[in-house]
Amino acid sequence: MAAIKPSLAKGTRDFSPTEMEKRNYIFDIIKAVFAKYGYREIQTPTFENLQTLTGKYGDEGDKLIFKILNSGDYLAKAPGNLMEEKASAQLAPHIAEKALRYDLTVPFARYVVMHQHELTLPFKRFQIQPVWRADRPQRGRYREFYQCDVDVVGSDSLLNEAEFVLIYHEALSGLGLRDFTIKLNNRKILTGIAEVLGKPELIVDMTVAIDKLDKIGLEGVNNELLNRGFTAGDLEKLQPIIQLQGTNTEKAEQLRQVLASSPIGLKGIDEIETVLGYVEKLVGDTAVVNRFVELDITLARGLNYYTGCIFEVKTNEATMGSIGGGGRYDDLTGMFGLNGLTGVGISFGADRIYDVLEELGLFPNTAVLTTQVLISNFDKLAELYALPLLRKLRAAGVASELYPATAKLKKQLSYADAKKIPYVILIGEEEIASGLFSLKDMLTGEQRMLGETEVLSFLAPNA
Amino acid sequence: MAAIKPSLAKGTRDFSPTEMEKRNYIFDIIKAVFAKYGYREIQTPTFENLQTLTGKYGDEGDKLIFKILNSGDYLAKAPGNLMEEKASAQLAPHIAEKALRYDLTVPFARYVVMHQHELTLPFKRFQIQPVWRADRPQRGRYREFYQCDVDVVGSDSLLNEAEFVLIYHEALSGLGLRDFTIKLNNRKILTGIAEVLGKPELIVDMTVAIDKLDKIGLEGVNNELLNRGFTAGDLEKLQPIIQLQGTNTEKAEQLRQVLASSPIGLKGIDEIETVLGYVEKLVGDTAVVNRFVELDITLARGLNYYTGCIFEVKTNEATMGSIGGGGRYDDLTGMFGLNGLTGVGISFGADRIYDVLEELGLFPNTAVLTTQVLISNFDKLAELYALPLLRKLRAAGVASELYPATAKLKKQLSYADAKKIPYVILIGEEEIASGLFSLKDMLTGEQRMLGETEVLSFLAPNA
Repeated sequence: MAAIKPSLAKGTRDFSPTEMEKRNYIFDIIKAVFAKYGYREIQTPTFENLQTLTGKYGDEGDKLIFKILNSGDYLAKAPGNLMEEKASAQLAPHIAEKALRYDLTVPFARYVVMHQHELTLPFKRFQIQPVWRADRPQRGRYREFYQCDVDVVGSDSLLNEAEFVLIYHEALSGLGLRDFTIKLNNRKILTGIAEVLGKPELIVDMTVAIDKLDKIGLEGVNNELLNRGFTAGDLEKLQPIIQLQGTNTEKAEQLRQVLASSPIGLKGIDEIETVLGYVEKLVGDTAVVNRFVELDITLARGLNYYTGCIFEVKTNEATMGSIGGGGRYDDLTGMFGLNGLTGVGISFGADRIYDVLEELGLFPNTAVLTTQVLISNFDKLAELYALPLLRKLRAAGVASELYPATAKLKKQLSYADAKKIPYVILIGEEEIASGLFSLKDMLTGEQRMLGETEVLSFLAPNA
Repeated sequence: MAAIKPSLAKGTRDFSPTEMEKRNYIFDIIKAVFAKYGYREIQTPTFENLQTLTGKYGDEGDKLIFKILNSGDYLAKAPGNLMEEKASAQLAPHIAEKALRYDLTVPFARYVVMHQHELTLPFKRFQIQPVWRADRPQRGRYREFYQCDVDVVGSDSLLNEAEFVLIYHEALSGLGLRDFTIKLNNRKILTGIAEVLGKPELIVDMTVAIDKLDKIGLEGVNNELLNRGFTAGDLEKLQPIIQLQGTNTEKAEQLRQVLASSPIGLKGIDEIETVLGYVEKLVGDTAVVNRFVELDITLARGLNYYTGCIFEVKTNEATMGSIGGGGRYDDLTGMFGLNGLTGVGISFGADRIYDVLEELGLFPNTAVLTTQVLISNFDKLAELYALPLLRKLRAAGVASELYPATAKLKKQLSYADAKKIPYVILIGEEEIASGLFSLKDMLTGEQRMLGETEVLSFLAPNA
């Protein structure tokens, strides 16, 4: 067979060591916060039965699901007419009965239903796994990418919502981000506004228009609202909402007046206030809370899905879309026949967070967990001389390598450079004769002759 | 849409929190050892272009590759005659041009070739990712399972082989295993034996027969050899090999006599002796090495693939096939047009190691990283009283939860039990009145009244 020039499948990526270590740095920090708040990890399989996924993501979503061709003679039972007609879409479920995970939510719902008798509610889980979508790849959009979700099901307490605000704050601060906004809204407030205006069908138009205030100004927003089917009378009622300003408490108070006639709208405000109350007690500093939490009634993500609080996180230090979001849903598992199970969850946009940390130079050097010391190798004698030291270094927990060939110094130093190894031990005739080692600091270039004990206590001070 | 009863795709598994934590415990220990020896992690995509994988695993292997149906109108360009003939196998590459990773070796070879200009050789990498095979599922065999590989390419030094012996020893010891055997062989020794007998085509038959010595005895082995095409004369020459006994050094010496006329066989023995010499220097204790390393010339895994040393690891504490294996290959990347790159690597059978640790009760309690303390919640007043303590516990790094609803004590204690949370803090009228907390030890049942400071210093002694 002629050798083929290898390539990656479209929209996929390799992760090289430095990228892996930076990605693990992010996930490790986020995971530690999840654990601190009582969340535990699960994983679900890469592929599910196709029918588990179909119909959960809308028609457009269904088209983006990667399907796996049945094994063996997959055409044997395929309806002949569908093949004759080349009816790709209709034939697919006959010849491809499995599909790649499209998100973590549907597999999680499937998991909860299948494991319901062994789970103790509330069930708090996190899940960090890749998902696959047959999207057209473009800058920053891949066909394989990681999702990082944390959810609790079986608890309607708003303490959960508050703790997610804390989790965002603690994880993002832990990653070194200083200026970010956790936006909060509540689906019930949006429903309330629609009730007050008598135009529930225009919720999305309304939020889309109001969301543009920063870009097109008040007049622009008002014009857009008129174009989208609102009357002058509606606009008048909407003004206090569009121009909502002040602290979160002040905003809630103004909304309470606008929504006075809507019980569901008032309930939404109650919920927001309860969440903010919990957040303040859990943070212990109102000024800090006001700095990073913002009630934003233009926030409308996943409107058909969420039923209570909605979250979205933006960094203010870099130009980037949202780096996280989530909300409460009242019927996660209904699609699999288990009704009445409420849940709330958030996700972290790991790829975007990676890009932000890279842009801001926030990855610490220690995120790259490389070898601490390379022992050079000039001949068999030096190699033999090096082996006991290598053994003792590793016994002391020091990640260390002996260059596995006799090679020129330049080549060995290049190897250390490429791997960002901070120290190189040089062993020449002089060292062997004196029973010492030359320790070279790769950053400063400084070189010192040390005994074995000194090398060990320098490289493993705590061993 | 009617709710469907959810199920897993055949041959796949969910990993629940306790399983995840135990799996992570294994991988974390193995990864730490890899890092200590200078290996760094990479990941490759879940799917590759089909042509990257096809033809690398033999005809049987090719059939087990999961193929991904092309997106969109995949039938449009499919040859009509193949559909008419229902020629499943021939049609597949026209309608499914991507496929799931079948192992980590071929994607790694593809990675090395594609990244050759940015890699500094020798390149030491490890990779822990799932792979997929359309095998018939059975006990212990899944369609999705993890591989855990560590390889170095671009170095022919036998120091690498020796370090893999050390890596096995350190990782398995780190996991608590006490009695295991790292078997060593060398492809060149097997070639040498075949040369001496003049029957290279019977190598596999020979090793299969000799491998049964424990089970069927010397006479049984000899009969089997005769049945498999060896002559009485061959048998005579083979006796010292079949009955090879003694220390590794003694075995090597006997082999050296048998293979005296075979240069390649002698080279194989030289290599084994060099590896053992390095291992002894790196372990620093010959007795230890003799206890866990065994020269076993019946070891013949992947005969067509490996060209030098071959490894296999068996535990002697549980009935289980090999828990690891590997070897040196001289042309990993030739399939992608990059010739002459030698490599050596080993893998850990993570699923089997999991089963062994479970059987031997070797998972420490700390492998389950659960919440340390649950604060109970009986009413709004108690919840309010609890929040500042919750904040301080988390600030001190203690994984802690407030039960997110007012519920009966029994229910809250069941929750703590299910999550194996070791401590529960009870807050009743008495506690609130006195400003104290009752700390219940879930293991002993013991309960103490403590002040906030005492609770914190008990649960976070180092904070």
